[in-house]
Amino acid sequence: MAMSMYQASVPVFQARLKSLSNVLKKAEANAEERKIDPAVFLNDRLAPDMLKLTSQVQIATDHAKGAPSRLAEREIVRFEDNETTFAELQARITRTLELLATFEPAEIDGSEDVAILIKGRTRDLSFTGIEYLQNFAMPNFYFHVTTAYNILRHNGVPLGKIDFLTP
Amino acid sequence: MAMSMYQASVPVFQARLKSLSNVLKKAEANAEERKIDPAVFLNDRLAPDMLKLTSQVQIATDHAKGAPSRLAEREIVRFEDNETTFAELQARITRTLELLATFEPAEIDGSEDVAILIKGRTRDLSFTGIEYLQNFAMPNFYFHVTTAYNILRHNGVPLGKIDFLTP
Repeated sequence: MAMSMYQASVPVFQARLKSLSNVLKKAEANAEERKIDPAVFLNDRLAPDMLKLTSQVQIATDHAKGAPSRLAEREIVRFEDNETTFAELQARITRTLELLATFEPAEIDGSEDVAILIKGRTRDLSFTGIEYLQNFAMPNFYFHVTTAYNILRHNGVPLGKIDFLTP
Repeated sequence: MAMSMYQASVPVFQARLKSLSNVLKKAEANAEERKIDPAVFLNDRLAPDMLKLTSQVQIATDHAKGAPSRLAEREIVRFEDNETTFAELQARITRTLELLATFEPAEIDGSEDVAILIKGRTRDLSFTGIEYLQNFAMPNFYFHVTTAYNILRHNGVPLGKIDFLTP
C-alpha cells in the first residue's frame, strides 16, 4: 500500500475516531461506577478559556469529515452541534465514520494541489490540499482527540496510552 | 509536491516541533513574568499517573527523530533524557530539528513496507513502515506535543490554538 492523500487522511481519522469512541465508552462507564453525573465530564475543560469535552469531540469530528470532503471537493455535511450526552457523542462519531466509509481513494488521491479556503472569524486561510491536510486539518484533529482524552484523564478516568492508540 | 512517506513524516515533525519550541518560550517568559519557578511548569502533569511536561517534550522529540530514522533504516541517535530546564528542552528540540534536516526524501520515500520492530517493556510491536508511521509514531508524537500544550494551558500560560498551529 502506497502513501497517498487518501492514506494520509481517511484511515487516520477512522482509527483515531474509533479510539475516541472507546475512550468515551470507558468514561461513561466510569462515571456510572463512581456515581458521577456524566455531565460533569462532558462539561469539563482544562482551562477556563478552553473548550469543554463535548466541544472537543464535536470539533474533532468536524475536521474528520471536513478534510476528506474538502480534498474530494464534496459539499461538507453539517452537523447540528447539539449533543449533550455520551450517547449523542457516540452517534456523532458513528455518523462521521459512516461518512468516511463513503470516500473512495480515487476521490482524494491527487488532491495535493486542490485550492482550499477556510473561512475564519477574523480572516480566511488559503492552502493547497497537502498544506491544508498537514498543517491545519490533521494537527487540529489530533489536538481535539488528545484534549478530549486529557480532560478525562484529569478527571481520574482510568485510561492509558493504549486506549488512545488502539482503534 | 506529492504526498509521500517523506512528506507525511519529516515536514510534519519539523512544523510541530517549531510550534512546540514557541509554546515553551512563551511558557518560560510567563513563568518569569508571574514570578513562578519554571520547575513548577516543567514538573507539572495533568494526572498523578501521567508524565510531567519535561517528559512530554522528551518523548515528542524521541518520536520525531525515531520515525524518520527507522523508516530510513538509520541507527537512532540516543539522547540522554537529562533535561531539567526550559533552555535544555529548547536545546533538545534544536538538536532534533538539526537531525531532521539531514534526511533526504529519497531516504524515506518508498518505506511503506519496511519492517519495523518496536521493543516494548511487556511485548514487541511489529509494523510495516506505513502502519508504524500512521498508527504509532504520529499519534504518539501528536499526543505528547498536545499534552505539553495542555499542561501549560492548565497552568494559565496565555496560549491559543494559533500557537499550536504556527511553526
